[in-house]
Amino acid sequence: MDRRSFLKTSALGGTAAAATTLAAPAYAQGKRTLTMVTSWPRGFAVLDDAATYLENFVSELSDGSLTIEKKAPGELVGALEVFDAVSSGQADMYHSADYYFIGQHPGYAYFTAVPFGGTAQEVTNWYHHGGGEELHDELGQIFNMKGLLAGNSGSQSGGWFRKEINSADDFNGLKFRMPGLGGKVLGKLGASVQNIPGGELYQALSSGALDGLEWVGPMADERAGFQEVAKVYYTAGFHEPGSALAANVNLDVWNELSDHHKAVLRYASMAVTHYQLAETLANNGAALARLQAQGVKTLQFSDDVWDAFGRASAEVMDENMGDELFAKIRGSFETSLANSASWINKSDGFYVQQRVRVLGQ
Amino acid sequence: MDRRSFLKTSALGGTAAAATTLAAPAYAQGKRTLTMVTSWPRGFAVLDDAATYLENFVSELSDGSLTIEKKAPGELVGALEVFDAVSSGQADMYHSADYYFIGQHPGYAYFTAVPFGGTAQEVTNWYHHGGGEELHDELGQIFNMKGLLAGNSGSQSGGWFRKEINSADDFNGLKFRMPGLGGKVLGKLGASVQNIPGGELYQALSSGALDGLEWVGPMADERAGFQEVAKVYYTAGFHEPGSALAANVNLDVWNELSDHHKAVLRYASMAVTHYQLAETLANNGAALARLQAQGVKTLQFSDDVWDAFGRASAEVMDENMGDELFAKIRGSFETSLANSASWINKSDGFYVQQRVRVLGQ
Repeated sequence: MDRRSFLKTSALGGTAAAATTLAAPAYAQGKRTLTMVTSWPRGFAVLDDAATYLENFVSELSDGSLTIEKKAPGELVGALEVFDAVSSGQADMYHSADYYFIGQHPGYAYFTAVPFGGTAQEVTNWYHHGGGEELHDELGQIFNMKGLLAGNSGSQSGGWFRKEINSADDFNGLKFRMPGLGGKVLGKLGASVQNIPGGELYQALSSGALDGLEWVGPMADERAGFQEVAKVYYTAGFHEPGSALAANVNLDVWNELSDHHKAVLRYASMAVTHYQLAETLANNGAALARLQAQGVKTLQFSDDVWDAFGRASAEVMDENMGDELFAKIRGSFETSLANSASWINKSDGFYVQQRVRVLGQ
Repeated sequence: MDRRSFLKTSALGGTAAAATTLAAPAYAQGKRTLTMVTSWPRGFAVLDDAATYLENFVSELSDGSLTIEKKAPGELVGALEVFDAVSSGQADMYHSADYYFIGQHPGYAYFTAVPFGGTAQEVTNWYHHGGGEELHDELGQIFNMKGLLAGNSGSQSGGWFRKEINSADDFNGLKFRMPGLGGKVLGKLGASVQNIPGGELYQALSSGALDGLEWVGPMADERAGFQEVAKVYYTAGFHEPGSALAANVNLDVWNELSDHHKAVLRYASMAVTHYQLAETLANNGAALARLQAQGVKTLQFSDDVWDAFGRASAEVMDENMGDELFAKIRGSFETSLANSASWINKSDGFYVQQRVRVLGQ
């Protein structure tokens, strides 16, 4: 579908149009507070960390003239209702993962992560220097939002399972949580895929409503406690090789901000990604060791399983190509990724292989 | 040597002590301009880019209340004199690569890159979440400076050669430019190693004063024009797997800044690293392709050569262990690196290997 048909058919089309008639609150004595709804329960490692850093960095950088008031799920709207809330002007901005909103537009997948996509670094290369931010804005125009990336989980783990995956057939009939286009890929392999908010996952895995799930990585997964109810952990996954978090701002609110406050939001978002991704990656190793000490078995999927992921991923991506904007975003992303990888694999990639060979790490 | 003997023996000990008696200029009408000397000729890709972004981001984030006046080499002091200039209070801050100053203290190597050290991401993990920034400050106390990292080149290329390197013996007698501890490693292999500022390298390679050199990576190397005078390019190197750039501020100047302006400098530095590293990595692939189109042959060193790099690197690192602070910095860095790598290799690393296997990139 193209942009016009999207606006016509989407329930949000109407909402977005209505939003432009809402007046954004004016600056009071030069100060401005933005209400930010999030998809993360308070204290959720990695994800709520990024939202909290954004809140803090913006306040420090603006010398208190711009502040963010963070609302966890349920305080204003539900975890997955943040998109509609910001699009309609009910909230000023959200912090979430944009691939939760592929139902609104499949192109949003690229602003979190896509199957066989880029690492955190490759996504950043594209976003800031390969046209990504401009395409985020083009999507945002449809829904009355200005997009920013603020946070990244790094490469997400393959997930938690009760039993080992020995072939792609083992996904057949598996009740598994995986959002975004990755979930659609597992659907091709026969899995019964569900998108459940993070705050409800532990219960779903405990009760048997889910056979398995992927969440983020060791630091976040340990905090969520999944090791208590599943013991098989695949460390690498095909589905989210570097998941960006997004802070989308209602476009009317954005347009009324001063140039200074726009700069504060833009550079604070970059600093958040830089600082929070590093925190996650600095802590994942120790968290993984603790999980192993609790009896968790860590594995990698076999080449055959990766081949099946590859075939199903190509199918899923191709199915969305009827949408003009999706095709444009995909083309831009894949050009940038090929360009990035053509150097990184020969420099960082080869270096790390040699370091592992020479030093064992 | 320990910190006390360092202060006694270093010519800078006296300068640093004297610096505390210089009054930092007060704020004039709430505005403050910092003079920043750099080691980069204006327009030098990657390196001067980072310095320029820092200048711009600080101005935007402070709404013009804090500005940086950038001085290229020769405008106030020479490229490698920036450290002494800031330590003594002649300039307010510098933008450079701290491993140029291992003569002042060998620990400074860790705030750019060390042989067989961390990738850009691993260095960032350590700096912000593994004690790196605190150790940068501990070094800075000796020389009256506050350290910040602002920029990163990514993994640097193995370098430019007139002839292929077929064994470690080929380094014997080679006149080669490599700064930092990496240069000392090539010295162990018999190379005649020189640290020449970037602005003088093209001439040195053209004239035969150098047989080869490493500079940064395709984007910066192409701009410098080395492909005109050497045709063999090794894409991966052992010496600088993720070179941070540093913005060190005179400590008296730093202490007089408002909390707001300190926050602006800290978060602007993070945003610079995030934004400029991505720019470099987004452009290196295309630059490499252009170099190849100009007849440059790209190669990797053999396993035997990497083994020789590994042995010589361990020797060089161990030779500095008599210095208490060097040993402390090395211990902190290596603990963080082992921790980071224990997860990253199993997630990002394994993922990229599978992506290359399945998709060819």
